[in-house]
This record gives sequence, C-alpha cells and structure tokens, in this order.
Amino acid sequence: MKQKTKKKVVVLGGGTGTFTILTGLKKYPFELTAIVAMSDNGGSTGVLRDELGVLPPGDVRQCLVALSRSDKLMRDLMSYRFEKGGLKGLNFGNLLLSALEKVTGSFDGAVEKASEILRLDGRVIPATLDEVHLMAQVGTRVIRGEEKIQVTKLNGSLKRLWLEPAGHANPKAIKAIREADAIVIGPGNLYASLVPNLLVSGIPEAIAKSKAKKIFICSLMTKVEHTRDFTVAGYTSAIEKYLGSPVDVVIYNNKIPAQQVLQRYARQNDTLTPWDDLPKDHELIGANLISSHLHATNKIGIASKESSLVRHDPTRLATLIGKILGVEKI
Amino acid sequence: MKQKTKKKVVVLGGGTGTFTILTGLKKYPFELTAIVAMSDNGGSTGVLRDELGVLPPGDVRQCLVALSRSDKLMRDLMSYRFEKGGLKGLNFGNLLLSALEKVTGSFDGAVEKASEILRLDGRVIPATLDEVHLMAQVGTRVIRGEEKIQVTKLNGSLKRLWLEPAGHANPKAIKAIREADAIVIGPGNLYASLVPNLLVSGIPEAIAKSKAKKIFICSLMTKVEHTRDFTVAGYTSAIEKYLGSPVDVVIYNNKIPAQQVLQRYARQNDTLTPWDDLPKDHELIGANLISSHLHATNKIGIASKESSLVRHDPTRLATLIGKILGVEKI
Repeated sequence: MKQKTKKKVVVLGGGTGTFTILTGLKKYPFELTAIVAMSDNGGSTGVLRDELGVLPPGDVRQCLVALSRSDKLMRDLMSYRFEKGGLKGLNFGNLLLSALEKVTGSFDGAVEKASEILRLDGRVIPATLDEVHLMAQVGTRVIRGEEKIQVTKLNGSLKRLWLEPAGHANPKAIKAIREADAIVIGPGNLYASLVPNLLVSGIPEAIAKSKAKKIFICSLMTKVEHTRDFTVAGYTSAIEKYLGSPVDVVIYNNKIPAQQVLQRYARQNDTLTPWDDLPKDHELIGANLISSHLHATNKIGIASKESSLVRHDPTRLATLIGKILGVEKI
Repeated sequence: MKQKTKKKVVVLGGGTGTFTILTGLKKYPFELTAIVAMSDNGGSTGVLRDELGVLPPGDVRQCLVALSRSDKLMRDLMSYRFEKGGLKGLNFGNLLLSALEKVTGSFDGAVEKASEILRLDGRVIPATLDEVHLMAQVGTRVIRGEEKIQVTKLNGSLKRLWLEPAGHANPKAIKAIREADAIVIGPGNLYASLVPNLLVSGIPEAIAKSKAKKIFICSLMTKVEHTRDFTVAGYTSAIEKYLGSPVDVVIYNNKIPAQQVLQRYARQNDTLTPWDDLPKDHELIGANLISSHLHATNKIGIASKESSLVRHDPTRLATLIGKILGVEKI
C-alpha cells in the first residue's frame, strides 16, 4: 500500500464546471467533497423552488451524477428531462431530490438518501441549508435572484452582492473545509456558481483558517455581462475579494482554441480570458486546459443551441491537481 | 434444509388488494410474481398516460412497493404525492417509472430497473406491454377507459368488456403462469383489477393449461355500480366466465364486521358479499379475512375520506395460502 489515507479534496462551485472537475478528479484516489452553491433559481430548479418551496436541487444533482458509481442508465435517469405536457422541461433528478426533501423533511436528508441510491464515491454538501436568494446592487438598483442577475450587465456598476436571508454555513461544509488537504475553487461561473458559496457566512472564514492548499481554477472565457475585460489576474482578485484571503495556486488556460469557435463567442462579445495579466505572489500554472471534444451539448445532457463550446477538460484539470498534491491516477 | 426449491406463486391483479396479498405472502418462502393489469387510466396514472404517452405505472408501482426490500424511507418516497403547484397530485413512484420508460425505451425495462433500485424480493410483470384501454358495452353504449367504466352502472346491462387495441400477453407473464405452483386471482376490484388481466390475449389460455393450483379470493364487499347482489358464487362465476376455465379453490370471508362500518357502506348501497350462495364443485375456504386495523388511509398512502374501510388482512390471506400449499412462514 502506497498511501495510508486518501488526500481530502474539497471542490467549491455548483454548475457544469464542478461536474467537469469532479469527473476528472474521481479517477484519482482522493476523498472528494463537493460544496455546492444554493442560490440557483432558474430553469427546472426555479420552478421547483417556486412551486414546492424546496431548496434548489439542480447543482447538487449534477455533482451527485458526477460522483455516482451507478450505471449509465441511472445517471441518464438523473439527467432526464420530461419532454411533454405539464412536466415539460422538468428534470427527473431534481424531482427526486425535491420529493426526498419532502419525505425526509430536510434537503440534507434528501442529499444523503440520494447519495445512497446513486452509490456515491465522495460527498456532496449544500453550502447552506437556508433558503437563500442571490441579491445584487447594480448602481442604485437592487436585483433579486440569480436568474435575473445572470442577464444583468454588472461591469463597473456592481456595488454589492449578498444573500437574502443571510445564509449560514452547513456545519458539514465547515468540517470538510477544515479537514481538507486541498480546496479547489472553480471552474465555474463567477457570480452564479463560485461567489454564492463565498457569501455564505462561515465559509470564507473557514477557508482562510484551513491549512489546505487553496487552488483557484480560472474561467476560460470572459462573459460580457459580468466579466468583460477580466484577465486571469482580474478573476483571481475578484475571487479573493469575496474570499477575504489569498489563494495559493492559480490554474489558467494558455491555449488558443480554433478560430471559428472564438468567433462564435465574439458575436456575443465574449472572449478568451487573457493570460498576459497574471496575479502576483501566487503559484501559477498555465496550461492547455481546453477540452478537445466539441460540446454540442454539455455533459449533463442539457441541449445547447451552440454548435460548439469552449469547455475545461476534466482529465487535464485533474492531472494538474494530482501533480500539485503528488497523487497518481488510480 | 426443508425445501430445495421455493414454491412459485403468481398473483394476478393490480390494485390495493394485490398490494395487500403480496404484503402477506412475502413473509413466506415463496418465489412471488405479480402480474399486473395495464388498463388503468385514472388519477396520476391517467395524467401521465395522457401527457407523456407512457404505459400506466400506478398498479405496477404498488406491487413494487409491496415486494421491495428497501427501507421505509424508500418505500415512502415511492408513494409520495406532490402537494403543490403544477405537480400537485402526481405520485413520485409513477414519475420514476415513466422517466425510466423514457430513458430505457420500454416499460418492461423501466420495471426491471425499478425492481433493481427497490431491491425487489419477487417479480412484477405487466400483463401486456400494449397500450390498452378497457372498453365496455353497456346496453347500446360503448364506454372507453377504466376510469369512466368505474363510475358507470353495469348491472344487468353489461354486454361486453374488451381491451382496445387487443392486448397481447407479455411473454414473461405467460412463462410465470406456466411455471407456477399456484395462481392467486385477487383480491381486487372485479372489472378494474382482475378482469383486465383476463382480457389480455394469451393469459386465460395459459392459466387454463397451467398445472398450478388456481385460487380465487373473493371480494369482501359488493359495489353498487358493478357487482350489486353478487354472492360468493356470483363473483366466482364472473371470474370463471372471463377465465374460460374453472378455478380450484375459492377463499371467501365469513365474518361480519362492526355495524357502524357496514352502515357507512350501506349509505352507498354497498354490502358485505353474502356467503349463503357458494359455488359448487370447488374447494371452499370460508374464514374471517377482515383486517382488524381500521383503514383511515389505505396501505399505499392514499388518503381516504372514509373513516374506516373493510379491507382484507394480509396475514390471514397469506396464512390460508400457506396452508393450501403446505408452506410455513419464514
């Protein structure tokens, strides 16, 4: 036996980026924990929040699927969306989590039972169990809800981001952060997946105190509404602002993808994140992080109208993190 | 070891009665198979049939729950009904089966996967995989759909019952019938749960040919719309008419329940099935079959407006069948 105990890696995020990195990291002998943002109120998740008064299941579900040891059929079931009638657009895995929340009486209980059903290799922990909404003050306007904030131009006018009501950290999240050997922030949408974790009272404090190696994985692209003109340094300082403490390592992409792909992004004024402006006083790892698979749909089965997307490659990311922690693939 | 191979018992039905008898029989070392009617088009099942074009999941779900070795939470989840919003009234277990039907591409595949998820002790087999509707000719009127037929007065004017399109037997059902040591028909609603199985082409023929002991469990009560004035003999001859061959044993209740319970039934003109008129040339077993628990809700969690219902007792039924087959409780 080479290793006595597995190294503990905590991934902070929620969306597709978290699904991607978990998919990569599960091939390494890590003890994996995903801490998931709980402010989503869009799509199928938003419908369930509104209609049933449940906590947002969507991001948790994606992480559960990523860490499931169940067969493909079971994972396909969790990502299945009803196509017709009154159920149209509703995701089955979200319905499972919401029904379990009702039957067990808590979202925490729901995640635990779903983890058992899906034979989880790792843990998924909601950042908070409070029913929070993401709030933004943009100029003098106050915008409520992640879904609306996603489509609001924030650049230069974002005064403040907060959760309403204030979210208190899930004690399980604090424990995982405290015990972690590494904390990986990202990849993920800055204001929809990453920062909402850091707005939860207790989480940034616990990360600051933790002796874990803190690794930030920078976004591949800038988004015109939220991160226009952001560089690797800009993304890093945005994260550190909400974190209230520095990260140790910044992993960023330095590969230029095919021109036709970039052109499609350019039509929406989204660009590749420039790496000519790097954060100071950090361990920096620049590499080709781009998946060579063109993603006509993303990994969790949501059809995309785009012909191709620039996505992180799970294996490339996991290889770098494996190297940082001195751990080899299973 | 007393027994080398378990005796094979096939239960034919679909509704609450089948749930009841399976619950009793699972405590015996039988190899259990439930063959389930597929013509239900009411309630949550009907909504899913209409909106998603799936096969009816409700009765199959009840049998899965009865035979599940999973914990109570899992069984509660399968019986959970959403209480609010657009999902109101929809049963989670039905949604699971319908989503699995979509993901696997067949209802048979859905039942198989659900059986695995629910760690089934036994098998549940849809009688037919054709998308059938129960049809009735009443006088000169033709009525389509089990839900409508349920509330139609048939007494004396029922000319014909059939399935549209004609349902062909699921080969797994035929195999189970062929290999059975005992075939138990009922308990269950005559025209909604029992006869729809016998209308499936191939099933009555297979039962007639089978060397199994054929046991009919007579309904406790008469229903004014469908079985007014039916006696034990009347119920038996109705079953044998659709079966096209005789059963060997008739099990019937001979206990009078509390007067206040019967009075409530009497207000709807439903009465205790009289046992003063018994079928000839049959092995007859009359016993107290009535559950001493008052059922304010039935066993599968459907709230009932009634304060108490006359129900079969799972243990009493199973004990009798155990005796017939010479098998003792586990």
